[in-house]
Amino acid sequence: MKRIMLVVAYDGTNYHGWQLQPNAVTIEGVLNQALQQLTGETIQVTGASRTDAGVHALGNVAVFDTESKIPAEKFSYALNQRLPEDVVIQKSFAVRPDFHPRHCDCQKTYEYTILNRTFPLPEYRNTAHFYYGALDLDAMQKAAQAFQGEHDFAGFCSAGAQVKTTVRRIDRLEIIREPDDRIRIMVQGNGFLYNMVRIIAGTLLEVGKGVILPECMAGIIASGDRGQAGPTAPARGLKLIGIEYLEEQPEAGR
Amino acid sequence: MKRIMLVVAYDGTNYHGWQLQPNAVTIEGVLNQALQQLTGETIQVTGASRTDAGVHALGNVAVFDTESKIPAEKFSYALNQRLPEDVVIQKSFAVRPDFHPRHCDCQKTYEYTILNRTFPLPEYRNTAHFYYGALDLDAMQKAAQAFQGEHDFAGFCSAGAQVKTTVRRIDRLEIIREPDDRIRIMVQGNGFLYNMVRIIAGTLLEVGKGVILPECMAGIIASGDRGQAGPTAPARGLKLIGIEYLEEQPEAGR
Repeated sequence: MKRIMLVVAYDGTNYHGWQLQPNAVTIEGVLNQALQQLTGETIQVTGASRTDAGVHALGNVAVFDTESKIPAEKFSYALNQRLPEDVVIQKSFAVRPDFHPRHCDCQKTYEYTILNRTFPLPEYRNTAHFYYGALDLDAMQKAAQAFQGEHDFAGFCSAGAQVKTTVRRIDRLEIIREPDDRIRIMVQGNGFLYNMVRIIAGTLLEVGKGVILPECMAGIIASGDRGQAGPTAPARGLKLIGIEYLEEQPEAGR
Repeated sequence: MKRIMLVVAYDGTNYHGWQLQPNAVTIEGVLNQALQQLTGETIQVTGASRTDAGVHALGNVAVFDTESKIPAEKFSYALNQRLPEDVVIQKSFAVRPDFHPRHCDCQKTYEYTILNRTFPLPEYRNTAHFYYGALDLDAMQKAAQAFQGEHDFAGFCSAGAQVKTTVRRIDRLEIIREPDDRIRIMVQGNGFLYNMVRIIAGTLLEVGKGVILPECMAGIIASGDRGQAGPTAPARGLKLIGIEYLEEQPEAGR
């Protein structure tokens, strides 16, 4: 028996999110199916981040156990032959048998993309939130500073999640405008509450529009009041860039 | 009666190319349909570049005549409300009544994208040609120089096109490798033969693989022999970036 980690990229447009559902196509579902086809075993992967419907990933993580004799590094190639074009394994390797992708300290990086121009661009229709109005990038960047560091993000969390604490640490929040009119909001931290990145993006959009002043951001965060933050920005703009495990490094390549 | 020019962006994935066909969905077809819905007139647009199935555009050009009282600049907004998400008008404006988008001197810019890494990326599955093997970028850039200037490109043309001359001028051919492993081949010239950019891309790929030596490129062009050039690279990697009209400038904004 060995435990294998998969780094998974996907376009979430045609999926009902990560998590297995009985009557809907999900990322977890197609991974389980491809693994069963490949190994003949009944396999259930355990995901690091259960992304919502329409959310994308460049490097989400899943682990599974198998008795298969296929070398860990070959699973990527073998699975990609059995997976649809919009789900692609980027890497596979052995990890220690008790490694759990949700119970280890890690750094997660997300990117939220806003396409900000007069007319939409077809190529970004599923991977960016389109907004045509003027956005004050300086104000957004100023407001972004208030998120840095450790805070109780109770006001930046959708109802329904059960967590012990709503305290999280954001190590990096950068906003860049690209020449093709994409505004990329890059967020890195040690964990995120349910919908947290989308609510941060929705709130920064309100700042860009001039609805929320950047000087008020620290107070809004401190209030812990979901009603003071902005709306949850649409799923299509969100992408999980990657997860870096810090302590108890998975034993890559073993 | 006025003549209006449209600058059209589209993701060509779900279309049978530009040109109107009786039983297939085409870009020209959806434009004609949206114009009829908007104006009540029976309108046939005339396109500048009749792109193949699967080819994309950021700025293809079409013109049409109308008696409509809608201001020329407003057609973009009104049409976008009636067009599918993967076809978006970027601009609309009046041009002189005898302006023809295929009979005026112009500069066309195309981009061919190769995604060159171990595994595909889902987000580029419809907009880049995936190639996993090593590519010698230096060799490709050296070979690219042979294309610059005026040449008889008879060897870089698919059968079926009827043209008076196969002489064309390429003003720019640049190849750039992006940090995310895309290789972008940018080509600018005064006109292109049928499949010319895709055959250039396919030939440069052979150079990158080491199958064709960069020193042989000038001779291959001079031969005029389709058999000496490389294969036609897949449609999905090609994008028409834009068309710039030189003489007889359309009277924008009139």
